[in-house]
Amino acid sequence: MVSVHLDAGVVEVRDTPRPDRPDAFALIRLLIGGICNTDLELQRGYYGFSGTPGHEFVGEVVTADSGHLIGKRVVGEINLACGHCSWCGRDLGRHCPHRTVLGIVKHPGAFSEFLTLPERNLHVVPDEIPLEAAVFVEPLAAACEILDQTDLAQGSKVAVLGDGKLGLLIAQVLHAQGCHVHQFGKHAEKLRISAARGIGTEVIGGRPLPTAAFPYVIDATGSPAGLRAAVAMVEPRGTVILKSTVHGEVPVDTAPVIVNEITLIGSRCGRFEPALELLKSGTVDVASLISERLPLSQAPAAFARAAQPGVLKVLLTAG
Amino acid sequence: MVSVHLDAGVVEVRDTPRPDRPDAFALIRLLIGGICNTDLELQRGYYGFSGTPGHEFVGEVVTADSGHLIGKRVVGEINLACGHCSWCGRDLGRHCPHRTVLGIVKHPGAFSEFLTLPERNLHVVPDEIPLEAAVFVEPLAAACEILDQTDLAQGSKVAVLGDGKLGLLIAQVLHAQGCHVHQFGKHAEKLRISAARGIGTEVIGGRPLPTAAFPYVIDATGSPAGLRAAVAMVEPRGTVILKSTVHGEVPVDTAPVIVNEITLIGSRCGRFEPALELLKSGTVDVASLISERLPLSQAPAAFARAAQPGVLKVLLTAG
Repeated sequence: MVSVHLDAGVVEVRDTPRPDRPDAFALIRLLIGGICNTDLELQRGYYGFSGTPGHEFVGEVVTADSGHLIGKRVVGEINLACGHCSWCGRDLGRHCPHRTVLGIVKHPGAFSEFLTLPERNLHVVPDEIPLEAAVFVEPLAAACEILDQTDLAQGSKVAVLGDGKLGLLIAQVLHAQGCHVHQFGKHAEKLRISAARGIGTEVIGGRPLPTAAFPYVIDATGSPAGLRAAVAMVEPRGTVILKSTVHGEVPVDTAPVIVNEITLIGSRCGRFEPALELLKSGTVDVASLISERLPLSQAPAAFARAAQPGVLKVLLTAG
Repeated sequence: MVSVHLDAGVVEVRDTPRPDRPDAFALIRLLIGGICNTDLELQRGYYGFSGTPGHEFVGEVVTADSGHLIGKRVVGEINLACGHCSWCGRDLGRHCPHRTVLGIVKHPGAFSEFLTLPERNLHVVPDEIPLEAAVFVEPLAAACEILDQTDLAQGSKVAVLGDGKLGLLIAQVLHAQGCHVHQFGKHAEKLRISAARGIGTEVIGGRPLPTAAFPYVIDATGSPAGLRAAVAMVEPRGTVILKSTVHGEVPVDTAPVIVNEITLIGSRCGRFEPALELLKSGTVDVASLISERLPLSQAPAAFARAAQPGVLKVLLTAG
């Protein structure tokens, strides 16, 4: 089968044997995959990754222990938890210390004709959700995770820093929640996607960023400067959500965090259910985030394209 | 009157005029003051401070608009808030953007024979609290602030990093709250103060610090290494309270904060009421924290003593 292989920064397409299906796992045929910034970070060699990347996907179940799954279109939660520890017992397998992670930690990823995942990780995609929308479930769930971690409610004033893929999804999720969202980014053309949904937007650079102005600030810049900007923009006693994975150490002036009693919350993967609901109801527009589609066999070109400035989501299509 | 003056790192005792008392302020005669790490930081020149330092004190009201205050022993909240803004309206004058701060920001401090504070900042000290205990109300309130910012409850497992004055107060406050406190510090002789109250203690260095082991970690180390250690010690989805004021930027690896969805909460001054209650009931032992008493006229020697390693609280006595 065709499979993407990443090693020492080089993306290749290889012909590899179809994976064995362990008990309680499903064998899944890839329909479509999405390249995430994390995949680009793996390519940059940040985590010593070698293997098949990919964790955003929609597939069709080929074989499974549970007959009702066979033939179904599915998306899959990316953390493969042990199922036995206290974290798993608290329904927080995403933090299971024994977990492997699809296409990231010790489990071959989705950029492959066939992949395997535990059946309990799978969610059947409702017919109302088009294939190219369903592939956004995983990053959309990461955006929704903010709602699980905070008391953000209708009317909350929120600044979103960053206009990359995740920033655009977060802005829409919080806007759909009834928050007053103001998104700051460097790219007028990307911010237009949010503006078209009624979200307030501002291109950074025109005037100084407001200080101590928002009770909630989301840093989705992907830049070391983002955290500093977020701390400056948040009100005393306010909350900054860290959604940017930045490699290495970030210099942080902790004095304003302490003096202004700011709360910083790290935020990663989320539950898939709310993301599926948002896509089913058409509340969130993901189609505008698609920059390009390339077949799996052209993965090297797709990775190169995804890394270019201004590019949003690059999809990998099967066949 | 005798007054301490701090400028460019030099502590002097000067003879200065008695301050005028504005309307709604009390004129207070100092009974006792406490030297805080913040005072030592002001001396190190971190904030360009010049003037009379001191914000931990007990005094006697000489004159005031409110007759019932006159002659009373008082402690005073250190933030002088405007009383009109939205922060003040929410009873959070400690975050009023227009505030001045006793002995720190644009209001002469308490290390002076006489000082002034708004009457609304004052708390009459109950007779049950000895003078040398009452002088700990301000730092004890800062320790209690943690309880106002978190849902720490009886049985919560908490690590306290640091065995300085604030770390020792925090450990006792959380222990009194019924938390299972484990305090880590570098000084066996300081940790003995906590151990004597039944708090679990451990001298750092003997074995590696535990990782992902506590749902709550308080960083009261006063060291840039403290935050990193706290992030490593806290469980996924756990909470780190930042109580250390560290000058300058601290390199923080945000990856574990995000991957483990850790919450970091900056924490500063607290309400005086719970601190007064703890001292009134004798729940917290502060007497063991006193290293030395020197008269106000020997402030330069007192500051030098307070800066020596191993020294805890140095008190400045009137007269």
